[in-house]
Amino acid sequence: MGPNFKRSLDSNSTDISGDHQTPVTISTHTFPPLETHKVRLPPKRTTFQKLGHRLCEIFFPDDPFYRFKNQSFLRKWVLGLQYIFPICQWVLSYSFELFRSDLISGLTIASLAIPQGISYAKLANLPPIIGLYSSFVPPLIYSVLGSSRHLGVGPVSIASLVMGTMLSEMISPINEPDLYLKLAFTATFFAGLFQASLGLFRLGFIIDFLSKATLIGFMAGAAIIVSLQQLKGLLGIVHFTSKMQIVPVMSSVFNQRKEWAWQTILMGFSFLVFLLTARQISLKKPKLFWVSAAAPLTSVILSTLLVFLFRSQVQDISKIGRLPKGLNPLSINMLYFHGPHLALGIKTGIVTGILSLTEGIAVGRTFASLQNYQIDGNKEMTAIGLMNIAGSCSSCYITTGSFSRSAVNYNAGAKTAFSNIVLAAAVLVTLLFLMPLFYYTPNVVLAAIIISAVIGLVDYNAAFKLWKIDKLDFLACLCSFFGVLFISVQMGLAIAVGVSVFKILLHVTRPNTVLLGNIPGTQLYQSLNRYENALRVPSFLILGIESPLYFANSMYLQERILRWVREEEERIEANKESMLKCIILDMTAVTAIDTSGIDAIYELNNTLKQSSLKLVLVNPVGDVMEKLHSSKALDLFRLKGLYLTVAEAIADISPIV
Amino acid sequence: MGPNFKRSLDSNSTDISGDHQTPVTISTHTFPPLETHKVRLPPKRTTFQKLGHRLCEIFFPDDPFYRFKNQSFLRKWVLGLQYIFPICQWVLSYSFELFRSDLISGLTIASLAIPQGISYAKLANLPPIIGLYSSFVPPLIYSVLGSSRHLGVGPVSIASLVMGTMLSEMISPINEPDLYLKLAFTATFFAGLFQASLGLFRLGFIIDFLSKATLIGFMAGAAIIVSLQQLKGLLGIVHFTSKMQIVPVMSSVFNQRKEWAWQTILMGFSFLVFLLTARQISLKKPKLFWVSAAAPLTSVILSTLLVFLFRSQVQDISKIGRLPKGLNPLSINMLYFHGPHLALGIKTGIVTGILSLTEGIAVGRTFASLQNYQIDGNKEMTAIGLMNIAGSCSSCYITTGSFSRSAVNYNAGAKTAFSNIVLAAAVLVTLLFLMPLFYYTPNVVLAAIIISAVIGLVDYNAAFKLWKIDKLDFLACLCSFFGVLFISVQMGLAIAVGVSVFKILLHVTRPNTVLLGNIPGTQLYQSLNRYENALRVPSFLILGIESPLYFANSMYLQERILRWVREEEERIEANKESMLKCIILDMTAVTAIDTSGIDAIYELNNTLKQSSLKLVLVNPVGDVMEKLHSSKALDLFRLKGLYLTVAEAIADISPIV
Repeated sequence: MGPNFKRSLDSNSTDISGDHQTPVTISTHTFPPLETHKVRLPPKRTTFQKLGHRLCEIFFPDDPFYRFKNQSFLRKWVLGLQYIFPICQWVLSYSFELFRSDLISGLTIASLAIPQGISYAKLANLPPIIGLYSSFVPPLIYSVLGSSRHLGVGPVSIASLVMGTMLSEMISPINEPDLYLKLAFTATFFAGLFQASLGLFRLGFIIDFLSKATLIGFMAGAAIIVSLQQLKGLLGIVHFTSKMQIVPVMSSVFNQRKEWAWQTILMGFSFLVFLLTARQISLKKPKLFWVSAAAPLTSVILSTLLVFLFRSQVQDISKIGRLPKGLNPLSINMLYFHGPHLALGIKTGIVTGILSLTEGIAVGRTFASLQNYQIDGNKEMTAIGLMNIAGSCSSCYITTGSFSRSAVNYNAGAKTAFSNIVLAAAVLVTLLFLMPLFYYTPNVVLAAIIISAVIGLVDYNAAFKLWKIDKLDFLACLCSFFGVLFISVQMGLAIAVGVSVFKILLHVTRPNTVLLGNIPGTQLYQSLNRYENALRVPSFLILGIESPLYFANSMYLQERILRWVREEEERIEANKESMLKCIILDMTAVTAIDTSGIDAIYELNNTLKQSSLKLVLVNPVGDVMEKLHSSKALDLFRLKGLYLTVAEAIADISPIV
Repeated sequence: MGPNFKRSLDSNSTDISGDHQTPVTISTHTFPPLETHKVRLPPKRTTFQKLGHRLCEIFFPDDPFYRFKNQSFLRKWVLGLQYIFPICQWVLSYSFELFRSDLISGLTIASLAIPQGISYAKLANLPPIIGLYSSFVPPLIYSVLGSSRHLGVGPVSIASLVMGTMLSEMISPINEPDLYLKLAFTATFFAGLFQASLGLFRLGFIIDFLSKATLIGFMAGAAIIVSLQQLKGLLGIVHFTSKMQIVPVMSSVFNQRKEWAWQTILMGFSFLVFLLTARQISLKKPKLFWVSAAAPLTSVILSTLLVFLFRSQVQDISKIGRLPKGLNPLSINMLYFHGPHLALGIKTGIVTGILSLTEGIAVGRTFASLQNYQIDGNKEMTAIGLMNIAGSCSSCYITTGSFSRSAVNYNAGAKTAFSNIVLAAAVLVTLLFLMPLFYYTPNVVLAAIIISAVIGLVDYNAAFKLWKIDKLDFLACLCSFFGVLFISVQMGLAIAVGVSVFKILLHVTRPNTVLLGNIPGTQLYQSLNRYENALRVPSFLILGIESPLYFANSMYLQERILRWVREEEERIEANKESMLKCIILDMTAVTAIDTSGIDAIYELNNTLKQSSLKLVLVNPVGDVMEKLHSSKALDLFRLKGLYLTVAEAIADISPIV
């Protein structure tokens, strides 16, 4: 710790005083004498206080209960009610104006949600009616529990695809439809349970490990997988592979060329062109959002009419067929809590749970930030989780906030979660009265709807931006893309998370060390590489370490620092400059240290001492100071070994080296 | 950063000049005007240059070829030879003085190595003779290739135990001894291959992930497991469990009470007391190192004599029996490169390879640092790897640098790797002529030798130090300890590595943010919590972020920063201070950023803008600047948004807010 503390804590002493008047000469510059400041330890806390503080930061970083502070008992009750049921925040002040907006947007998303529901259920190898059921109960639950005003709730493509893939790898949806359905509800239940627990136990940060880069690659890969799967419907193929990877699917498509049906192909591609055109129009002119929103329902109605009118000529085209009328039947008795397939249900639940949660939260946050309100991630997770638990008991499969639906909802002017209630009401009417109308709806139009919905998930521009900014992010993106395409959906995801974690570990394992120099005329020490005018200080080697000092890098940093010393000595010898005397480590960016890191400092100090070099630490942060102190390593740096700034260290040591 | 930056870049301008004359008033202090410095981008490099530099830092941080720079061709040859065969460094200047030291130390370690070799082979469920073979070939190879002067090479307890456990879980060493032996050689081969590849491909940092904390727990757990296994020999039990965990072993011990043999117990505990006493003496007086070094051989000789003399009375005591005379037979034909057990061989090889490498490198480094020479980790790995590959072809199982042997070697005054050659010669003599003498050696004394050797691995003090300094390190230590004791050796290790990695991820996922204030009379901004005299700057909120900005924390940091803002605004309102205008983020410790981090900065800037708050970045490091630049995020901070120091930012912005 610094040698002279002339100043007491009160700040009325003069800047330059007494025997420090003589300036210290360093290289070619003259500095005013520097007062040295003591590096302080953080205030003492017990282990329990530290643990408590750390746990608070880990689990309650947003201080969720701050609203309750200093409130009356009654007010606390009201706030608590509003906290648990966000519907209470707006239902009392609900007005006709708001209702009109919500009604329009609710009906608009309903026109999108009904064909999407039927299509996505097919993606998960489930009966189409399950998709409609899933657009009825979950939106109702979400409108009570959810805190986003714009989230449009229902089945989504990615989670449907993943559930379909994972379950059908073990259970055939054709040979054992009942077991398959049971497992789908079970997986949905566990997905909900997992999501709700993440929210309740405030472990939401787990989904942060699916980085955006990973998701860009994953979504693009999944979109291609989904689109290729639709070739079955689009080409009218009957015998199709049950595999998902690109190679078996493409070979199946070309091996079954005999089964290609021209009527189906013609109809499919016409509607696909129609849907994609509608999509393009809405993309170009966001005001015309309703064009793409209404296109799926229009396609369904048109195609159903066509098939109905020419029903004798187009018997080859596969149709949805009879759908049961009526509301969601209870499915609580179909949940599957024992037996050989339980593990599959849990695994599928967790994977689809994470994926759908990621989508739901991301969508919620996107639209919240557009209107500048906050979404409480953990609360949203609980809401989505409870919605899925309730869904699994009422014949729904996994649902979440869908991007396409929420975008339509937002553009149509939704003001509150009431638009979800309107959506549910529209689905209710459909379920009760309109089911027979779907009898002639051709499956090929559903395939076209799915393709036009997922095509937007392939985001070249975002991938290109990743490449431009961060090569490792791009690598994670590529890994998840090719992993999904060529191995499997789960493996692609696992590889991508692995690459993302590896990126963090690599940064810690091989941290940067920077040679610092003085910016002439200042007390600043910055990278010699970046600031060309920065100058070395004779006899000193100043290194900035840009990483925590951990077991994973303590050996590396020792070696790397010794190499800096060796290279500096060689340079000095070549240039015949004055001998190296002192190594200064700027620890400002060393944000943490562990026992291996402390050992590394001990050993480095020993090695340097044997070459008659002095080691000086500058500005260790709070945690690091605390650990250096409790490990007694600080004793090594008692005398002229610890400073608050590099400038103070050099000013104080220069006269004696 | 010193208090006054009156000086411009060329140092002859006047101190205070022009329109900067009026001092800017902040809180209660008067600062001289500050010149602002531009934050610079690092020099431009192409993607390939960056990649090349990064790969260099990852794989060649120590610049291993620096010795070859600017040397003549012949000299390069000599240096190359010395690099590959470190024996060339000392063999030409070898003297009688050195030889005398090495002879004494070589003979001393031989007296330790012979009983240890026999004992450790039994630990790996291998015939005792394999342990002696393994003390002959590997030391010879190491003396040619190894760069440590003090490493005593041979079988070690931990690797022997792990190999024994992993192999005997699948193959019974009693029912299928031939297959077991083949697999042991195969595992040794793959261990060597793995070690050598780590060295050649410079991936040595992989072993850094076995942190010291983990190893302390692991070794203590393994030592207890090993000692408990020895109860079989020590109590003379014949029918013993083949499991390793503490629970089945203890129940086996007490269920087989009928088999306890008092003669064996008496002899075993007597020698155990003798060995432990010898160990204590050497610990207390390091000069008497030879007491504990010679104790095992003394015990073997004494016990053999006793059993021989009273051979009619003590027939119950189990003896080693006949050992084949002669040199290591070739075993290259016993390696196993196909068939059902290949995977087991590879897995065992990798796990034991990592463990033995960790021990070997750590021991080598420890003794190198005592005598202040450097060990090249990657070169050592190659040497140990080649030694094991050669060993696997000549009837040796896995070997590495052993701590006990190296300590004896060092204390006995070894000067070069020649002591390993002396050791090999002594083992050669034993193998050729002395094998019949071991006929009457009782197994119980081997058990006592093993216990006394591993007991030192239980290091309470180190564990207590971990607890005192770093609770998470202590947790990793506990996990590996209990994992080894109650689950399995591999699982214990896996859990501990998992905890260590989790520690890194946790630090990145939930980084510290610190509220900074001005230390009166200086331009320094430090934590308000640590420096009680530091003062807030009215209208400014200054936050230090202590972590890279990654996908894993970008969401957290946004929320945390907004909470700081909210709390600051509440405080200001309560105290009726001047309104908050500007948020300054000190990015000095943000050592890296990725695309999610950049998005977070965008969003944070947007959110703050909507509350009419200005966001300012201070001192982004090189990589971060580069990415902010290439992502165009820097444009957000063009005008009064980016500064080199907090002081400059405040001085420059204060007049306008």
